[in-house]
Amino acid sequence: MTPPPTPPVPGPGAATSLLTDQYELTMLQGALASGAAGHRSVFEMFARRLPEGRRYGIVAGVGRFLADLERFRFDQAELDFLADRRIVNDVTLDWLAGYRFSGDVWGYAEGEAYFPGSPILVVEASFAEAVLLETLALSVYNHDSAIASAASRMVLAADGRPLIEMGSRRTHERSAVAAARAAYIAGFATTSNLEAGRSYGVPTAGTSAHSFTLLHDSERHAFASQLGSLGTGTTLLVDTYDTLRAVRTAVELAGPELGAVRIDSGDLAAMAKEVRNLLDGLGAHQTRIVVTGDLDEFSIAALAVAPVDGYGVGTALVTGSGAPTASLVYKLVARSDGDDPRLRPVAKRSVGKPSRGGRKWALRRRSAEGLALAEVVTTQEPVPGPHDRPLLRRLVAGGEVVAHEPVQAARERHARTLAELPPTALRLSRGEPDLPTCFE
Amino acid sequence: MTPPPTPPVPGPGAATSLLTDQYELTMLQGALASGAAGHRSVFEMFARRLPEGRRYGIVAGVGRFLADLERFRFDQAELDFLADRRIVNDVTLDWLAGYRFSGDVWGYAEGEAYFPGSPILVVEASFAEAVLLETLALSVYNHDSAIASAASRMVLAADGRPLIEMGSRRTHERSAVAAARAAYIAGFATTSNLEAGRSYGVPTAGTSAHSFTLLHDSERHAFASQLGSLGTGTTLLVDTYDTLRAVRTAVELAGPELGAVRIDSGDLAAMAKEVRNLLDGLGAHQTRIVVTGDLDEFSIAALAVAPVDGYGVGTALVTGSGAPTASLVYKLVARSDGDDPRLRPVAKRSVGKPSRGGRKWALRRRSAEGLALAEVVTTQEPVPGPHDRPLLRRLVAGGEVVAHEPVQAARERHARTLAELPPTALRLSRGEPDLPTCFE
Repeated sequence: MTPPPTPPVPGPGAATSLLTDQYELTMLQGALASGAAGHRSVFEMFARRLPEGRRYGIVAGVGRFLADLERFRFDQAELDFLADRRIVNDVTLDWLAGYRFSGDVWGYAEGEAYFPGSPILVVEASFAEAVLLETLALSVYNHDSAIASAASRMVLAADGRPLIEMGSRRTHERSAVAAARAAYIAGFATTSNLEAGRSYGVPTAGTSAHSFTLLHDSERHAFASQLGSLGTGTTLLVDTYDTLRAVRTAVELAGPELGAVRIDSGDLAAMAKEVRNLLDGLGAHQTRIVVTGDLDEFSIAALAVAPVDGYGVGTALVTGSGAPTASLVYKLVARSDGDDPRLRPVAKRSVGKPSRGGRKWALRRRSAEGLALAEVVTTQEPVPGPHDRPLLRRLVAGGEVVAHEPVQAARERHARTLAELPPTALRLSRGEPDLPTCFE
Repeated sequence: MTPPPTPPVPGPGAATSLLTDQYELTMLQGALASGAAGHRSVFEMFARRLPEGRRYGIVAGVGRFLADLERFRFDQAELDFLADRRIVNDVTLDWLAGYRFSGDVWGYAEGEAYFPGSPILVVEASFAEAVLLETLALSVYNHDSAIASAASRMVLAADGRPLIEMGSRRTHERSAVAAARAAYIAGFATTSNLEAGRSYGVPTAGTSAHSFTLLHDSERHAFASQLGSLGTGTTLLVDTYDTLRAVRTAVELAGPELGAVRIDSGDLAAMAKEVRNLLDGLGAHQTRIVVTGDLDEFSIAALAVAPVDGYGVGTALVTGSGAPTASLVYKLVARSDGDDPRLRPVAKRSVGKPSRGGRKWALRRRSAEGLALAEVVTTQEPVPGPHDRPLLRRLVAGGEVVAHEPVQAARERHARTLAELPPTALRLSRGEPDLPTCFE
């Protein structure tokens, strides 16, 4: 037997600095050599476009990024790896050993809507300090915002009915935790993921799978065991053999206080109707019907007229419903000249990937009634009109994180933000971004 | 300022047991109450189908799952969370406190091809022990196999030219590490991800981004700094302003020993041809051309006739090129009856989601020439023909992991496995699975 591979187990407060592309470090080395490493620089994160057909995006990952930033340092283990593999030279290693981010960061708050060109993160620091954050910032925001953006549409489609996030098994085990968090911010009621419950306080849910029924000699025995152990308020999974027969058995055993039944296969709309009629006929008027099984925002919307009380969503949620990444980029938009401390705009001229130079501000222009009208992005600090809402808030001041908040705050912000978007935002159909982005 | 959220920082050798759906634990509670928890059970992981149009899948995640399994236990922190949130009762908490997996696991080796119905993981243990592993096993295998399956096709498309994995920024920061590992197993040459270098020994690569050029007062100054710091063997990014002018500057500064130039935008095929002609005209015959920018297996194949020496792949790799999850499921297929220790097949009868009951074995039927002919899946231990290759190997014996191996071994297995598949497997076009799955 060969020896076990080095287990990739992060230590307590493990450094996050190697969750990074190598070129961030080789650029640092080059900049230290050229003397440009200390040039004051502004990097911005933004999306050139939304995923095809989407009308808005939801910013998520802010809290996770800030927590990761506080652990972004090069301890001996990281330095040893870089030295052993000769990834950077000794000058660079010395610099990294003392690295702590000391710059300033502004950004859209978590749960906020964004549009093409919205400067959702603005990092001002020396080039050296700011470039190192590129990969990690993008990883966190691209993943979490993709999930939250998809989740937000599912919540709209569900129109007040609760959604259970249950996609953990369809994505990387740590992405699953972040996905549950992002879904909760965007309005999901609960998650199946226990670590999301522990790490972020997301409410958790879950009762049983088909294997529990198959384990017992009869469905009746399985149901009785579950009811005895979890109480009559539990959710019984009724589609292992014959759904209607299972519903009868369930009510027979639990009485009309049975909490819910779950249907995971077949024609969910038709079956929900049959099950509702049967439950009502048995006097179980309060027993809820939860449906699961490859749901996305469109199939949820299609079930609007079905007698369904809740939806469980898995694969489509954790894969961003067709858009598993948010296409956010992190670009140098301004820098000083070394001797001259004033920032001047920079932008590359590549074909098809234009960038807009200059440091940005943003506000949401709103009508007197509070309806969002436009995303206004400026290269000078704007004077907000009486109904405008500035979108950048300070996240990090002189290297210190100043914007920790519980996920509940982001969840409430998401609800408020959606409420001010024009009605077109509520459409699931493919369309253009819901607000125009005006560069002023 | 509100207090910081509980930081989700795993401790040293942190327990992986909460990376799990709640219902695995509530089923355990129900089974402990009903007396069925100890019933000997077999769960299997398999795909009902491959992603649309794919001809084979690649198993990945085996090594990661085995490492996670060794840390799958309920320490005081996990028990406290479950107790505080009243997720399970005291009897269940007591059982969990003493939990260590003590069963047996067989599986396809990492890097192996799989087809619909291939039993890529077979877990035999008490119901209680085996059901707890469901979510984590699926998370790891579904993610890693999706990435490896996409990567394998890209490697075929590149036809011997090296591929650099550079998708970290487009996926969750920890998925990125696993994606780099999976891509390497499937034949990628290098990754940009430093943590994948440290954790798994994947070779890393990376030099500079557009921001490095924009940081300096001229492209010439940026190139000179990079060459001075990283040596003439480095890769210069030439498309920040005017690609051909940049190539001239690059060779002027580095001489014909310049390692490579990278083109990240525009018409890559046309530009590569122009750049090759220019490099050759300047005497830089050995300078390689690396192209990047939203490549997938199809655009890689389309560049086959272009003078390209290597490809960098990001988004399409980490999102599984349209199939970000592998659709693997984990199903109870057999169990004992309690008093009778013999395993008997079980299967649910849900509409559209059939399962095949009974514990499975698998072998790859091959011709005398070693060409794969069929995936043979049996419910009795098969007697392999002279050219058949058994596919299940022991991974865990009596709770002890017995199949640790370095990723290099999986990488070599992937290459061998692909070599025995029929030529249709090499087609990128949409089609049916490359081998028929025969249930015997």
